[in-house]
Amino acid sequence: MEKIKIETNAYVYPMPMVLVGTTVGKRANFMAVAWVSRINSKPPMIGVALGKTHYTNAGIHENKSFSVNIPGMDLIEKVDYCGLVSGKNNDKSQLFDIFYGELPNTPMIRQCPLCLECRLVNPVDLPSNTLFIGEIIGTYTEERFLTDGKVDIRKIIPFTLSMPDNNYWGVGNNAGKAWSIGKNLKKTG
Amino acid sequence: MEKIKIETNAYVYPMPMVLVGTTVGKRANFMAVAWVSRINSKPPMIGVALGKTHYTNAGIHENKSFSVNIPGMDLIEKVDYCGLVSGKNNDKSQLFDIFYGELPNTPMIRQCPLCLECRLVNPVDLPSNTLFIGEIIGTYTEERFLTDGKVDIRKIIPFTLSMPDNNYWGVGNNAGKAWSIGKNLKKTG
Repeated sequence: MEKIKIETNAYVYPMPMVLVGTTVGKRANFMAVAWVSRINSKPPMIGVALGKTHYTNAGIHENKSFSVNIPGMDLIEKVDYCGLVSGKNNDKSQLFDIFYGELPNTPMIRQCPLCLECRLVNPVDLPSNTLFIGEIIGTYTEERFLTDGKVDIRKIIPFTLSMPDNNYWGVGNNAGKAWSIGKNLKKTG
Repeated sequence: MEKIKIETNAYVYPMPMVLVGTTVGKRANFMAVAWVSRINSKPPMIGVALGKTHYTNAGIHENKSFSVNIPGMDLIEKVDYCGLVSGKNNDKSQLFDIFYGELPNTPMIRQCPLCLECRLVNPVDLPSNTLFIGEIIGTYTEERFLTDGKVDIRKIIPFTLSMPDNNYWGVGNNAGKAWSIGKNLKKTG
């Protein structure tokens, strides 16, 4: 089929939805973020790319830390709300039960199945966004979200985002084992 | 419920699967990557975080470009294969039909529903990985993957990865409109 060119403002499909936590002006704040990815293996680092005008950014710069909280589908309305309103004009500190790990001013969300506590390594200044790179120094979950000691995606029930159509999606069926199902394409002998 | 601490090598759920294309030693090569995210809004930029020992990295450094190809579920075995074997010892250039856009030595995959052609902006050196930041200068798809002029996730049928359990997952059901379903939590008046 013939390829066509479309606008360059394109996305990957789908994008994981998280809540980035920080403290701004002594108040816990949470921002809905889909531009997030692991970016270093050892030590474990994660990156979140936030538009420079966001209220959250000042808190990360000030505290040199942030949290990445992975919400379950049951929190989808609250997550969307966190993306609709700015902490500048809205107190989002009462939306969730907050707990803290080792880092001060780095609030995490008790209702989220998985919470990553991150020490800011390096903010990368880009034209319209700042990529905050954080080292994961604490990971918090609950026994009920584990299977054989590992976080189980079927138990945490995360959701994803597609843009530019702006829709949320659940996780679908298992489609096979990674680093495994392609083995039959390996040339033998 | 009580939070417990687990190992810090934690992930986001789920991660989008892409194939990163480049030319290494005059041969097109493709690498399976899940550590990928948009990282800048204007101009559109994307980041891929590759372990430093990967064969692909030399090609990106040399050509100052790479492609991000979003495969449909029909390519899952080939994608997994691309993650199983290195281009150093295996010719992956014949796995797909290749096309080129504006950048030389930046192969894209005709069988992928969505292909992003990226000019290297900046490689960010991290301890074990290099984060390659690219500006998207060309986006290629087909009419059949669009709805109302926008890429339709239900038509491209992408898949995702969870770690450390190493499973692939399809995209699930629509879970609502983003920047919308949280509106009822806004305080009125």
